[in-house]
Amino acid sequence: MKLQLTSGDSFSIREGQTLLDSLKEAEFYLVASCGGKGTCGKCRIRIIDGPFEVKGYGKLTAEERKKGFVLACQSIPLGDLIIEVPEDSKLTVGDKIAISKGRDLFELLLSLGGDISPLVRYLDLNLPPPTIIDNISDLERLKRALKDKGLEGLRFSNRFLKDLSGALRKNNWDIRIHYADCLGCSLTETGISSDSLEALFISAQKDTPRYGIAVDIGTTTVVVYLVNLDDGRIIDVGSTYNSQIRYGDDVITRIIYATEKNGLEELRGAVIEDINTITDSMAIRHSINKEDILSATIAGNTTMSHIFWGLDPGSIREEPYIPTVNFFPIWRAGTAGLNINPQAPVYTLPCVASYVGGDIVAGVLASKMHRSPEISLFMDIGTNGEIVVGNNEWLMTAACSAGPCFEGSGIKSGMRATKGAIEQIRFNPSTLEPEFSVIGDARPIGICGSGMIDAISEMFIKGIIDQKGKFVSNRTNRIREGEDGPEYVFYEDTKTNIRVVLTEPDIENIMRAKAAIYAGVSLLLKEAGLDFNAIEKVYIAGGFGNYLDPRKAILLGMLPDLPVERFVFLGNTSIAGAYLCLLSKRMRQEAEEITEKMTYMELSVSRGFMDEYLSALFLPHTELERFPSVMEVLK
Amino acid sequence: MKLQLTSGDSFSIREGQTLLDSLKEAEFYLVASCGGKGTCGKCRIRIIDGPFEVKGYGKLTAEERKKGFVLACQSIPLGDLIIEVPEDSKLTVGDKIAISKGRDLFELLLSLGGDISPLVRYLDLNLPPPTIIDNISDLERLKRALKDKGLEGLRFSNRFLKDLSGALRKNNWDIRIHYADCLGCSLTETGISSDSLEALFISAQKDTPRYGIAVDIGTTTVVVYLVNLDDGRIIDVGSTYNSQIRYGDDVITRIIYATEKNGLEELRGAVIEDINTITDSMAIRHSINKEDILSATIAGNTTMSHIFWGLDPGSIREEPYIPTVNFFPIWRAGTAGLNINPQAPVYTLPCVASYVGGDIVAGVLASKMHRSPEISLFMDIGTNGEIVVGNNEWLMTAACSAGPCFEGSGIKSGMRATKGAIEQIRFNPSTLEPEFSVIGDARPIGICGSGMIDAISEMFIKGIIDQKGKFVSNRTNRIREGEDGPEYVFYEDTKTNIRVVLTEPDIENIMRAKAAIYAGVSLLLKEAGLDFNAIEKVYIAGGFGNYLDPRKAILLGMLPDLPVERFVFLGNTSIAGAYLCLLSKRMRQEAEEITEKMTYMELSVSRGFMDEYLSALFLPHTELERFPSVMEVLK
Repeated sequence: MKLQLTSGDSFSIREGQTLLDSLKEAEFYLVASCGGKGTCGKCRIRIIDGPFEVKGYGKLTAEERKKGFVLACQSIPLGDLIIEVPEDSKLTVGDKIAISKGRDLFELLLSLGGDISPLVRYLDLNLPPPTIIDNISDLERLKRALKDKGLEGLRFSNRFLKDLSGALRKNNWDIRIHYADCLGCSLTETGISSDSLEALFISAQKDTPRYGIAVDIGTTTVVVYLVNLDDGRIIDVGSTYNSQIRYGDDVITRIIYATEKNGLEELRGAVIEDINTITDSMAIRHSINKEDILSATIAGNTTMSHIFWGLDPGSIREEPYIPTVNFFPIWRAGTAGLNINPQAPVYTLPCVASYVGGDIVAGVLASKMHRSPEISLFMDIGTNGEIVVGNNEWLMTAACSAGPCFEGSGIKSGMRATKGAIEQIRFNPSTLEPEFSVIGDARPIGICGSGMIDAISEMFIKGIIDQKGKFVSNRTNRIREGEDGPEYVFYEDTKTNIRVVLTEPDIENIMRAKAAIYAGVSLLLKEAGLDFNAIEKVYIAGGFGNYLDPRKAILLGMLPDLPVERFVFLGNTSIAGAYLCLLSKRMRQEAEEITEKMTYMELSVSRGFMDEYLSALFLPHTELERFPSVMEVLK
Repeated sequence: MKLQLTSGDSFSIREGQTLLDSLKEAEFYLVASCGGKGTCGKCRIRIIDGPFEVKGYGKLTAEERKKGFVLACQSIPLGDLIIEVPEDSKLTVGDKIAISKGRDLFELLLSLGGDISPLVRYLDLNLPPPTIIDNISDLERLKRALKDKGLEGLRFSNRFLKDLSGALRKNNWDIRIHYADCLGCSLTETGISSDSLEALFISAQKDTPRYGIAVDIGTTTVVVYLVNLDDGRIIDVGSTYNSQIRYGDDVITRIIYATEKNGLEELRGAVIEDINTITDSMAIRHSINKEDILSATIAGNTTMSHIFWGLDPGSIREEPYIPTVNFFPIWRAGTAGLNINPQAPVYTLPCVASYVGGDIVAGVLASKMHRSPEISLFMDIGTNGEIVVGNNEWLMTAACSAGPCFEGSGIKSGMRATKGAIEQIRFNPSTLEPEFSVIGDARPIGICGSGMIDAISEMFIKGIIDQKGKFVSNRTNRIREGEDGPEYVFYEDTKTNIRVVLTEPDIENIMRAKAAIYAGVSLLLKEAGLDFNAIEKVYIAGGFGNYLDPRKAILLGMLPDLPVERFVFLGNTSIAGAYLCLLSKRMRQEAEEITEKMTYMELSVSRGFMDEYLSALFLPHTELERFPSVMEVLK
């Protein structure tokens, strides 16, 4: 069967398969936040001609249905089809996306007392060439020279020995041996001597620098830093969307795809290709031989870390929520398929539990909160929401299941913070008309997380919505009756049929997310026996954090009502922690210590959580006295 | 271009390639002892029709050339060809070949005090299933249980972790963990704690036995024992020719093919396939799941061991004759491509030097000479000739470069000891006519090693050849003038055109081989300051040893003139040693100790060797007084 697109593309497709899957096979990806379950309504396409069968219409409006729109994930062609794919249904990945460089990371490393001690080490040896008298084997010759330098007990892989004979002779016996600690064991391993070393490969004794990559694997974005391992300099920064998005927006959808649809290798391949694409282009740009990229660190949430290494994430999703591993052994880049030196050791930032991963450990490390006697709160509001409370003596953490709504998922006009997203909103005090700024100064096509927070807090202050997030209908004619009940229209273009709205269900979604975050923080503090005021610093991490106005987030009741100067925006702390661990053994050890020290609270089974959560489902909160600054504004 | 065989097969072939290579590409293999250099004359074929070019005729007789015979390795088709391939030019591999089971190996193990302690070990664990309170990761749960049993510091591969989550749950947390010592390091490694363990895989706690394979990789034959690892019982024995024969008969030709023709992977693949074919058929025959074959040991000469692991053997051949490794690290079966459990640890018997390999170490171990205060001589006369002299205090070894003539290579009618080979010869005392026995009671098609030794020693005693190995022409009409000078005709069938002869160059070859062996033994003893009479036992190993009459070999001057009762035939000691090491840690340690203890003498550069060798180029020797028993016979 043939599928013809009005854009001109055409693909031959298999019978009995949904249009979403058929397009995916042809590497034409649609937005499918829900992973193809028919619930998110984002894979909207229009059938122009041809026979098809529809399993359901999901969120499509009657008007859309009349115009021929269907959900690609719910439609099965019964013969040759001609379809139109609207721009907003196409998934754009692979673009370079904005990332925050944050502070000077090398200074951060120095301020933490980290030295430069990457996972990969080397030793230059000038071996005496063999003679008929001194005729021991190549390996025994190498071991003898290593022993003379005090290095004993290295392990040697078959791969290493395959190259040994040639490498020794090619370099006239003046060689550099590269080796690593602890391959196959995690750094916290007891019972493995710290001298346990593994030979990696042999090179010439050359002056060119050694490189490494620090990688942040977010559920939504992938960021790679190319770093000079000898001086700590960041050579280049690259980023892209995590191509796993094509299988669903959140970790749960991905886990389902990995386990129920046998898609683990596909998911793994997608993110590896993302990392490789970035690394390749950086290597070309800086004329760096990929064989000279000798180490990598990976920081990601527990699911992302598992998928990266091809480990089944299935049990992460099922009570009692057990990952395969928290303290990952160090493995080789070749095992993961990273397109750098295949022998390069790869350090994975340790995870705390199924929903608090290496990205959070990296964040705590980069925030330095684990070093300070002050009580701090660390929040990473990305695709999920994780929080950490503590100081240099104790650390507690929890995951809030805030869901990916701040990244646009589950919100009718929701989108990620890219071109065309409304990111800031003010209401004109006199006209009550919205004024907004759009990323890239483009025409708006949707609304991103910071825009949602602005919108709701402003609408609340201006009395457009009430404390429960319901529209107070008589205040503005921008409130219309939509398919899902009343909605507020921020922008409308009848020509292109683009409307940017917030519906009551959208607001409910956002309030649920903010309530989950606030309840998580409350409960964690209660568990620690602390009052909100005990928090002297609130570190906000995540791409999201960059654009967030803390006053608006307090108005929303998402952040606790603390003086604004206590909030510190750190940007992407996951990549910062990955950078620190790439360079320094002390930082790696500290990451392990942080992880061991963290007490994890499973909020989903905590009895107090539901109470806290329900109280937080108001603007800003049922207990208004918790938000004195908001009380002041509302007066 | 097309190549048509008179047998009916036809292949399309590439231009500019020799017929030998073209046939090889079509997986039609010819005997090519010299590896295609045009010197051995065994890849004889007849061109029936078509244009071709010939680079040389090598050993072909004028008569053969007249009949249209050419050497396939020297002939290049210039268009479509029709050829005839005589039976004796076809290489037969893959047949089951005769092997000696030797003594009861399990009794040998017990007599050596070896316990049953294979490389692979296991521990049964009944893990408490995770709960929301006890929610550590799968790996941490496993480590906790291992620690309770006193096992700490295991290494975990990515492969192991990939299976972990599923294996724990499938078996309801009652599991067996299989692990091994020392992966990636050789047993002699200093600086690696003996507790250095590697997790291999998880299975159910089952009652089925565990299996292992002991493998002897000879240059000519491959032997595999399937062994029950729990009780040491030999389940089955399989053997085949080493398919590498198609690339040449001796190790030198194979090394050249591996390095100059980039054929290392081809050679490796050939022998791996041989082992897998045997193992597969044994597993099927005994209904054994190949996943339950959990360990392997490999005994082979240094070149065979290198090729098995894909290590470049190039420098073995070039002065100063350096192998990549003598003490092989333990690696996984999957690395080699063995078709057993891919996680199974594989122990390679250590090699002493480029031309004294793990097969000899295995032989010494199996002979027990390293345990006895008696001075013994160990000789392995296979495709090459290796000798060891010593006792429980010292061991010396050398390789004799005897060459593969006793296996038929370089001998006009030479062949391996298979069906159709003349293996025993007596001369009728009155008629002086030869009487012989042929393997398989077949019509003779050639002569094998023991037949050659019988023939020459008998011809010498009967005065048919002189002390220099030259024909004394007036003694019998069986001596004819051949292409290569005079030859003795043992068998002739004018119908089939089959003639079994020994030519003067053949006899010269054999005398060179026996002289090399005898000179090696002499020199080794001289170096040790010992007289021949000091040798209280002569252990003769190798498939060849089975059919050898020591009296004839003494007459030939190959073996020293010692009382016949001092000679002990051990059969295939390489497989025996491999069996011992498969089962017992003590045996593996002893193999390492033997190897470390052995002093290697490089005969090729020894000044005394040429003198000894030249003196031994007579029947039995220039110094007849060294052979009193022969003097007695000649009287």
